[in-house]
Amino acid sequence: MPLLVVGSVALDSVETPTQRRENVLGGSAVHFAYAASFFTTVHLVGVVGEDWPPEHTALLAARNIDTTGLAVIPGGKTFRWRGKYQPNMNDRETLEVHLNVFERFDPQLPEEYRRSKFVFLANGSPTVQLKVLDQVTGPSLVVADTMDLWIEIQRDDLALLLRRIDGLVLNDAEAKLLTGDENLVPAGHKVRELGPKFVIIKKGEHGAMFFGEHETYVMPAYPTPQVIDPTGAGDSFAGGMMGYLAAQNAFDPKTLKQALAYGSIVASFNVEDFSLDRLKGITRAEVDSRLAEYRQMLSF
Amino acid sequence: MPLLVVGSVALDSVETPTQRRENVLGGSAVHFAYAASFFTTVHLVGVVGEDWPPEHTALLAARNIDTTGLAVIPGGKTFRWRGKYQPNMNDRETLEVHLNVFERFDPQLPEEYRRSKFVFLANGSPTVQLKVLDQVTGPSLVVADTMDLWIEIQRDDLALLLRRIDGLVLNDAEAKLLTGDENLVPAGHKVRELGPKFVIIKKGEHGAMFFGEHETYVMPAYPTPQVIDPTGAGDSFAGGMMGYLAAQNAFDPKTLKQALAYGSIVASFNVEDFSLDRLKGITRAEVDSRLAEYRQMLSF
Repeated sequence: MPLLVVGSVALDSVETPTQRRENVLGGSAVHFAYAASFFTTVHLVGVVGEDWPPEHTALLAARNIDTTGLAVIPGGKTFRWRGKYQPNMNDRETLEVHLNVFERFDPQLPEEYRRSKFVFLANGSPTVQLKVLDQVTGPSLVVADTMDLWIEIQRDDLALLLRRIDGLVLNDAEAKLLTGDENLVPAGHKVRELGPKFVIIKKGEHGAMFFGEHETYVMPAYPTPQVIDPTGAGDSFAGGMMGYLAAQNAFDPKTLKQALAYGSIVASFNVEDFSLDRLKGITRAEVDSRLAEYRQMLSF
Repeated sequence: MPLLVVGSVALDSVETPTQRRENVLGGSAVHFAYAASFFTTVHLVGVVGEDWPPEHTALLAARNIDTTGLAVIPGGKTFRWRGKYQPNMNDRETLEVHLNVFERFDPQLPEEYRRSKFVFLANGSPTVQLKVLDQVTGPSLVVADTMDLWIEIQRDDLALLLRRIDGLVLNDAEAKLLTGDENLVPAGHKVRELGPKFVIIKKGEHGAMFFGEHETYVMPAYPTPQVIDPTGAGDSFAGGMMGYLAAQNAFDPKTLKQALAYGSIVASFNVEDFSLDRLKGITRAEVDSRLAEYRQMLSF
């Protein structure tokens, strides 16, 4: 099954304690789509400006990522983000955000995309995420990501969204903010009671937790010794997960768990270099090989 | 095999965001010993004062914990600690420490204990830990715990200790402090290169990481929804682990991994109430049942 993703497409400038990169390919929909492309065809909807390097489109197209839905705004500038990671590589400071064309992002789904069965609403305004949902007819599985900003300023629309999606992905601090609960286990279930059938809490280097009606589990991150740039880790996690689900055309508990494991593995590669540089260099066989190692690691 | 533990025995006063307890049974050797007692006989060496309530000794004795080595100092006062947990239940502030009789702790092992095959040096001065090792003849497995204080003020003795033990248990912040490496994967291996055959980094609610010469793995914490008091979590983790190893009289990689899983499970019970209150109420069967659930949780 093809997989639809709607979200940000960006040019990122990233500083780590030892290195920096300027205007590299980024954005949540991009990290998501590239990660998912190991498993299935991806339909990407986003917006960029005139400054968008066409080689980025070519890179995505070469990976079975359909960019028909990537609008290029004449005279516009692409969303830019500049961030700096602390020595622990987990905490980061946003130095600059220029939303540019993303500020007025009003996604219009191409006709074919409206019948998508697997849909991911990457981090963005819940108002816009709801508009996307209004255009999709009869999806099988809709999963959304969100962030602290929307919990703070668009809580009503977020509440509406939560009642219309099947799964929500958010990070630990956001789950605590949304529920007021400091223990992630009750927090995860409280988020689930707001609407989604399942909730996944991302804990960065500490892995992810899954909350379903009948299941609660935690999966650690694969312990990679090489963390070069964590940007996009959460998006590539979601991309690996949704890509696998769409490829299987299933989301029963067993498939979901396998999908979370794939998400963890793809994310562990993503952080091993800047932008998509590490993911560009690996094959599906390498993903499967690390997955097998990960499974072995967790069996006792 | 009986298991020897040498370390602190204390009366703790604990404040959490919602509750408090005064002068409850605590100390690293106590949490360790009680956790280990689900698996094997424990020989406890420590020191207390005249104020030590005899019912605590009775409680330990009832669990196959031999307290022949628990010295009661006439006129002395027991080590007391007072701490306060932040709302996240992970960060804590030490409000008061009165070392009392523990300040001059000079452990003398009873003759029978000197032939112990399984030895745990609970958190304490490396100088004292070395003195204990000098009294033990031909142990099979020696594991030690340490903390930031000793890394800062007794680094030379800690370096000596690291070359004489088989395994070291420490937490994430301590591993970073000891090695200067912010990524726990290289940090764990760097600690191992200082001497021990294996290193275990405890990450609190995020579980534990194992570093051997040929193996690196991570085990998440069991996701308990009820964290009442995290005091002693790390010690009960180590106790569950060492108790299982001593019971098996083995420490090959497979047994070690199973032991880490048992440690995680016992620790997950320990945090569900103050002091030993939760562990006092459960049976080995309940430990095994949660272990089975944990194994299922990690298989995909």
